[in-house]
Amino acid sequence: MATRTLSFVVNRCRVPITLNLLLYIPLLHCQQFIVPFKSPSDCGVGDFFDISSLSCVSCGPNQRQSTTGLSCICNTGYQTLTTDKASITCHQCPTDKPAVTKDGFGCIRCPGNLNDDGTCKCQPGNILVERDNNGNLLDEAKCEMCNGNSSAWSVPNSSGDRCERCQASFINTFCECYPPNVLGGGLCFPPDTLSTNVNPIVNFAQLTFNVQSAWFVKNLYSSTAACLAFSNLTACQALGNMCVMNMHTLSGLSTDACGLFNSVYRSRAASSTHDISYWRANLPWLYYGDEPGLASRVLQSSPVPTGFSFRGTKKNTNIKLIAAVYNVRGEFLRWENVRGNLQLCPETASKQAAAFTFGTAYKESCDLSVAQLLDAHPEPLFYDVYMDLGEEMKKQLLPLPTLVYNQQYNGRFINQENMQGWYLSRRMFLVDTLSGRERSLSVLPKVIRVVSSIKIRFLLVPRTREGQVYPPLMIVTYSDVPITNINTQTVSTTFAVEYEMDQSEARMKTDTALGVLGGVAVIYSLLKTISWKRRIASPLIDLETMLKFFLFYAGDLANVFFTVTVGTGLYWLIFYKAQQFVSVLLPLPAQEEQFVTYIGCAFALKLVQFLHKLVLQVSVDVFLIDWERPRSKASRTLPAAGESKRETSPVSIWRTYFVANEWNEIQTIRKISPTFQIVAVLFFLEVLGFSNLALRDPWPTLQRSSQDYTPSYSLTLRYGLAATLWLCIGLLQVIFFTIFYEHFVEDKIRQFVDLCSISNISVLLLSQRCFGYYIHGRSVHGHADTNMEEMNSNLKREAESLCGQRGLLPNTDVQTFQVSLTSRLRSQYDRIREPLRRNIPSRLMDSSIPNTFEQNVRAYYTMNHFLGSIIDHAHPDMDYIVKDKLMFERVIGMEFLEPSDKSIFYNDEAHSFSDVLFYGNEATLLIFDTLFFCIIDLASQSFILAAVLTYVQQTIFCLIRNILGRKNLVSKTLVDERFLI
Amino acid sequence: MATRTLSFVVNRCRVPITLNLLLYIPLLHCQQFIVPFKSPSDCGVGDFFDISSLSCVSCGPNQRQSTTGLSCICNTGYQTLTTDKASITCHQCPTDKPAVTKDGFGCIRCPGNLNDDGTCKCQPGNILVERDNNGNLLDEAKCEMCNGNSSAWSVPNSSGDRCERCQASFINTFCECYPPNVLGGGLCFPPDTLSTNVNPIVNFAQLTFNVQSAWFVKNLYSSTAACLAFSNLTACQALGNMCVMNMHTLSGLSTDACGLFNSVYRSRAASSTHDISYWRANLPWLYYGDEPGLASRVLQSSPVPTGFSFRGTKKNTNIKLIAAVYNVRGEFLRWENVRGNLQLCPETASKQAAAFTFGTAYKESCDLSVAQLLDAHPEPLFYDVYMDLGEEMKKQLLPLPTLVYNQQYNGRFINQENMQGWYLSRRMFLVDTLSGRERSLSVLPKVIRVVSSIKIRFLLVPRTREGQVYPPLMIVTYSDVPITNINTQTVSTTFAVEYEMDQSEARMKTDTALGVLGGVAVIYSLLKTISWKRRIASPLIDLETMLKFFLFYAGDLANVFFTVTVGTGLYWLIFYKAQQFVSVLLPLPAQEEQFVTYIGCAFALKLVQFLHKLVLQVSVDVFLIDWERPRSKASRTLPAAGESKRETSPVSIWRTYFVANEWNEIQTIRKISPTFQIVAVLFFLEVLGFSNLALRDPWPTLQRSSQDYTPSYSLTLRYGLAATLWLCIGLLQVIFFTIFYEHFVEDKIRQFVDLCSISNISVLLLSQRCFGYYIHGRSVHGHADTNMEEMNSNLKREAESLCGQRGLLPNTDVQTFQVSLTSRLRSQYDRIREPLRRNIPSRLMDSSIPNTFEQNVRAYYTMNHFLGSIIDHAHPDMDYIVKDKLMFERVIGMEFLEPSDKSIFYNDEAHSFSDVLFYGNEATLLIFDTLFFCIIDLASQSFILAAVLTYVQQTIFCLIRNILGRKNLVSKTLVDERFLI
Repeated sequence: MATRTLSFVVNRCRVPITLNLLLYIPLLHCQQFIVPFKSPSDCGVGDFFDISSLSCVSCGPNQRQSTTGLSCICNTGYQTLTTDKASITCHQCPTDKPAVTKDGFGCIRCPGNLNDDGTCKCQPGNILVERDNNGNLLDEAKCEMCNGNSSAWSVPNSSGDRCERCQASFINTFCECYPPNVLGGGLCFPPDTLSTNVNPIVNFAQLTFNVQSAWFVKNLYSSTAACLAFSNLTACQALGNMCVMNMHTLSGLSTDACGLFNSVYRSRAASSTHDISYWRANLPWLYYGDEPGLASRVLQSSPVPTGFSFRGTKKNTNIKLIAAVYNVRGEFLRWENVRGNLQLCPETASKQAAAFTFGTAYKESCDLSVAQLLDAHPEPLFYDVYMDLGEEMKKQLLPLPTLVYNQQYNGRFINQENMQGWYLSRRMFLVDTLSGRERSLSVLPKVIRVVSSIKIRFLLVPRTREGQVYPPLMIVTYSDVPITNINTQTVSTTFAVEYEMDQSEARMKTDTALGVLGGVAVIYSLLKTISWKRRIASPLIDLETMLKFFLFYAGDLANVFFTVTVGTGLYWLIFYKAQQFVSVLLPLPAQEEQFVTYIGCAFALKLVQFLHKLVLQVSVDVFLIDWERPRSKASRTLPAAGESKRETSPVSIWRTYFVANEWNEIQTIRKISPTFQIVAVLFFLEVLGFSNLALRDPWPTLQRSSQDYTPSYSLTLRYGLAATLWLCIGLLQVIFFTIFYEHFVEDKIRQFVDLCSISNISVLLLSQRCFGYYIHGRSVHGHADTNMEEMNSNLKREAESLCGQRGLLPNTDVQTFQVSLTSRLRSQYDRIREPLRRNIPSRLMDSSIPNTFEQNVRAYYTMNHFLGSIIDHAHPDMDYIVKDKLMFERVIGMEFLEPSDKSIFYNDEAHSFSDVLFYGNEATLLIFDTLFFCIIDLASQSFILAAVLTYVQQTIFCLIRNILGRKNLVSKTLVDERFLI
Repeated sequence: MATRTLSFVVNRCRVPITLNLLLYIPLLHCQQFIVPFKSPSDCGVGDFFDISSLSCVSCGPNQRQSTTGLSCICNTGYQTLTTDKASITCHQCPTDKPAVTKDGFGCIRCPGNLNDDGTCKCQPGNILVERDNNGNLLDEAKCEMCNGNSSAWSVPNSSGDRCERCQASFINTFCECYPPNVLGGGLCFPPDTLSTNVNPIVNFAQLTFNVQSAWFVKNLYSSTAACLAFSNLTACQALGNMCVMNMHTLSGLSTDACGLFNSVYRSRAASSTHDISYWRANLPWLYYGDEPGLASRVLQSSPVPTGFSFRGTKKNTNIKLIAAVYNVRGEFLRWENVRGNLQLCPETASKQAAAFTFGTAYKESCDLSVAQLLDAHPEPLFYDVYMDLGEEMKKQLLPLPTLVYNQQYNGRFINQENMQGWYLSRRMFLVDTLSGRERSLSVLPKVIRVVSSIKIRFLLVPRTREGQVYPPLMIVTYSDVPITNINTQTVSTTFAVEYEMDQSEARMKTDTALGVLGGVAVIYSLLKTISWKRRIASPLIDLETMLKFFLFYAGDLANVFFTVTVGTGLYWLIFYKAQQFVSVLLPLPAQEEQFVTYIGCAFALKLVQFLHKLVLQVSVDVFLIDWERPRSKASRTLPAAGESKRETSPVSIWRTYFVANEWNEIQTIRKISPTFQIVAVLFFLEVLGFSNLALRDPWPTLQRSSQDYTPSYSLTLRYGLAATLWLCIGLLQVIFFTIFYEHFVEDKIRQFVDLCSISNISVLLLSQRCFGYYIHGRSVHGHADTNMEEMNSNLKREAESLCGQRGLLPNTDVQTFQVSLTSRLRSQYDRIREPLRRNIPSRLMDSSIPNTFEQNVRAYYTMNHFLGSIIDHAHPDMDYIVKDKLMFERVIGMEFLEPSDKSIFYNDEAHSFSDVLFYGNEATLLIFDTLFFCIIDLASQSFILAAVLTYVQQTIFCLIRNILGRKNLVSKTLVDERFLI
């Protein structure tokens, strides 16, 4: 590879040369421009780095590289001469003037020795004079002593060529710091200022080691002393900064940074700033007091004087924070508006600004490269954060209490414990790469400290109507990063703004609602159980009754949980997104656990109810009564089926097949289209952007720009939104299908009843032992088993009302009934059905027990005859009456009359026989689907996955219901499975 | 509001005081800490800003604020005294020493006048001496003249208190720049160096105005002169930078920055750096030559020596760019690896690094605040960008040619025109807030220049197998922003990396495939048209034939377009995502237009085909032949229906109803579940993350971290992915349903054929005039119109093979046929059907024309009798034969034999009668759905919307097909609509 690709460079041209010649393009033009890489450090000591050609170029004779490497300077002992102004030449100094002047251009004689760089050397405290006042170069340089006496107070300057006035703290007797005075940080302190025994240690508690910090070694004593002795403002700030770098940690020691700060603090007890007793004159405000319970009083006793409001003329969502910024030396730099400056994560300004919009839950995390941090933050900056109360309040400031998570108090991490023990403080920094430098300030630090989390927490005043909050709390967490490999190491950091309110009241209300409704549910379930007991005509309270009660109760309790949770979700959705003055704030994720549990309960209970209903539906008793008699006899006696004589043509079974087939087909139709439901919900949520309503911010907008910050989702809102949307679309569908579609397009249930009537077949459905439904299908024309001509004329006659009405009672239209059977009738029914129940006809059985089928058919004809005669009042001991159900009976779903003597047929124009189909249980199915969808969504945070799984769930249950329903139909009506297609 | 909230501050405590007293909490603790806001500029002239209390504090007597505002200094004429080292006191100087020393601590007598600040004033060129060499303060200050002669070459230093050696360029006769020498930028130039007539103008072409730039005024002449006269390296770079700030623009003028650069460039013609003729010694490399066509030779003649590879041992996707960075003064700062430093948008380092991963289309845009730009970029930095060829190539560098979009050449924006005229250059900057400053460097600029777009374009070498690219091109666009209100103004900026390859070859291949397949499609459509002509038994070529041809051709052409587009999409998907050495790159959005057009064509043509098929299906002729004879006569003669005698029981119509009902139900069943199809596709794309495969990067991973950069989507890949996924899932479904489901669960088509046989009813379907399908349903038991007992025994006998076989011919099983009728037979059929065709039975008509129905019924019976007798070979002149179809006939879908004499029944065990149902046209429907889904997705870039609309589309077409199909069935078979439920 290397040799091949290298050949390109050598050839420099890939286009064949002949072609080039033809095109008259000089070879030069298609050359590959390639340049070797050289950096200043690659150049040898006799070369300099030519910044034009980016290569190393030799210096002239007697020259060497300068310290930057970008130019040449003369060797030691050579003076610089300029010849053509573009480059220098060097000339050796004559032996009588062997030294070079400091500017390098002259040669001079020295009074003493020479330095290594060839210049003259003077004693410490002396200055080197090379020129006279007029700039004339002297033949011999002079070393002069600076006069430190009271008349001059002078000392050599930093470059050692002038005498200057010495620092004020030295001015005592002579311009020098003699013991017992103490020299520190360029200042001279009186002997009794401070013990020099200070502890310049920074404690990295996470790593459980200390560092003897070079910065502290250099500055801790002098800052403290200057603060204490001279009340030097920057020194006091610098001392405070060192305490902040030490995590505000108060150990027993009084010689570490915070200990020293505290001594100075106590010494200023008499003075306070702005009437705040914790803020002593000349000192930074670092601590709130350590009285027990102070934290909760500071944070939760008096609200911030301005309120927040989401809309209207007094709209105020802008959180104005402002910070006083100090550098590590304690100098005040500026006031800074807090926008992106506390956010280490790189993000556009518009997104960062979202953090300071009230009500928007903000969280931005990222990993930062340690190398970049070291580069960008050579020194820490310190921030004292205030909340700006705005022009209305004459621009007053409210200091933000800060909770430093890493702070220790006598060895305990008090701020990680409960609020009673919290020790609030002030002042924070973002990145400290300084205090971890051990021997010198120029070496790589052993460890750096980076803020891993800044969280600003707002707490709403309970029951406020004006959007009032308590003073916001800043929670700051630092992480200690030991430096191993700066190029690969990363640190994660987070900036968050949280809004919280006391949820105990809301929770209490929820629990109250649950309790009350749960109680009602018990009563309702009891009623259902009683009703069920009557319908199975069993007075005993046995284990089955208990089980049944719990099954009913599961359903009702599920409804209670569902109502309460949807109500809660909707409450938050509406009240949070629509409020003007802020009066509620969303529950935090941690506060939502109970809510999610309730949803889980609702789903689990609903599942129980759903499965229970499913089992009931696929085991319902159904029988098709055929009213048709053979044609040959004109008499209107009942057909003695089973004994039908051979000479008469048999009654065709095809009508029964038709009815059974249609019954089979309407098993799983519903009042809504389940697939459309899913698609519509998905469309609203994901395409129209309704899902944006569940974001943790107060804006009720559907479309969000990708430029804007997107907060996280609130589970509560997500649930409230999804459930509401699902129910609304479901309800609209139900209304559309029941009001419009079934009136103007087709009503499958009505069609089935019509079909029964046209085909001369009645349907008896027994959902419980003594309770069921009856669809009266006796043809008004007497015969239905006829050819097309007669069929059509029959239909025409009926359309023109030329024949009787279809009802069971003469001159009525009511074809559908709820029936309460007497126990005797049911026993008789069971006796006839005995052979059918024993043998479920299956293809396997057919061949092995050939005579079973004969028995079955005989039972079928007997049953047909028996039920027909019952309906025709032919059995006086098993007679029935027809009556209307009372309104109250309808409401509570229970019959007051017990069918002891006669069976009772209740008129039922509402087609309530659909209760044994999916059709009549739309509410249960809809709620079950809603809960299923929401549960999946809460678990996966993906509406799409929820939609997909809901579809799968619906398909599977539909399939199960169809298969089991068909099997049941086959076994109960004896219709061959092959006709149920 | 103001008064109310103010009251909080006054009260300071909101908790009722009584409560506080009870709790023994001192009032102090619940006070609201509020601090007034003060900044240094708020403090008066006699106050200083106390950085500890953040408030204004009065200075002592005779003092005033220092310039920073953070401390106090003495008034003019007062000397500073330190008393307690913490603060100063001021003391008026005695009248004999009225001046204050420069350090402020002493009083002194002056040789001349006093400055405004109270210090002594000397003549220009003189220095002020206040102390002697030993630091003793003089009683009277001295003004000394610096000796500028050859012995000393000295001039006053910048603070005016020392004599120093003067600058080398002055050293001539006396240390001053006398005419005719020219003074410029602190240097002294010989008179013939350069005309002083330079043009310090910066042209802001977008705003069409020039600015007399303060920076250029100060530095243009001196930099040019120093570069020209002294070959000063930094001066040459500074001159180059000014040309870059002027957009490399070469106007006719030779006195503007680039004009001056060009003169210096020409004067260095003999020397070049690194053998690159455009890079002259000591000068920066700013331009490639202006030979015509040079750009294309530089960019497209010789590849970069290293190749890129996506995986394997030689994996190399890292684009290493390195930049030499200069500041505006021309100083070389450092070599910088290009990572985030050219990207102005704030983004995490890991996302920014994605820009330099080969193959990832990168684009990051944002709006930047002008205030922040001014703050962060006080001076521009200049970048010379190189590509690092890596260690293998001994770290050689390839300079990146740059195309400055704003560059003008004699007034024309040549780089915005075509490539032949391009004028490549080098060196760029990001933000220039300097050149727009007009009068002084400290005023706010009138206009700033910000890079609005940096685009790095890689061009793949055609037919490379080793991932070779030509030298990448940087396209840089600047925007000129006039400063109006810096706090609200924003600038948008973009950084992009693009990968391009010559798509003409791929396009040619696509077009070739389209041409060839299109030709085949013509032949196939011709065949279909011929077949159709034979089937309608019409030899004429008329307008209808032409129309029909075009309808067939639409379908075939749609398939061609579909095949080619899916093939292309899949090709890119596989080859781009799976290649090891880079050999193909995705088409750019601009190159995708043709592809999208093809997809549009495919969809439009498919829609035509689909609608055509739909119309054919809902107008097919269908007749149900009832074989049942009345029971009373035992003879096997055909039932003379219509004349059936009254005394015999009529043949029941219910079997016909049953068959018609089932036929109605299978109209829209399909070989797949369309809803499951949508849900599954959505699941794969959005939940499993297959959509990530369509991103413009080379990684075939499904899950992307939110920390990673997400490139944009490629339309080609999106289409290829969606279409492939749709087809695959469709195919799997077809396989599942045809292989597994229909064998083991249920086969609706098979069930229908069985039903025909059991119910003793045959179905004749005529899709064209003389062509159609016949389902032979004559019962093997003679009768089907019977009771349950007999029905079941019949079924049992058949299961045990105790009766004959169901086939049309004796001892065969074949029940389904394709039929080619003779024209005579069809005429007879039409004649019988005449009354039916005239009157479509409807409820409205029923009452108004009562006798029509009688006619219809008579026609029905006649037809039943006629068709029955045809099948029974009772009409010798309209006889038929049964034969097998040839394989070739099946393949091309045309019959070779013309049914001139006898009709022909072709055995058809494949149930091809389903061609008149949705079931038999699965391919068309599947492709139509696929195209519909993809078209919506391409338009909206949302798979969810596409899925929703596809569902709606399927539902609507299904509904239309059902309604129209039912209407057709009603009109053709006379079965009342009420039985088709």
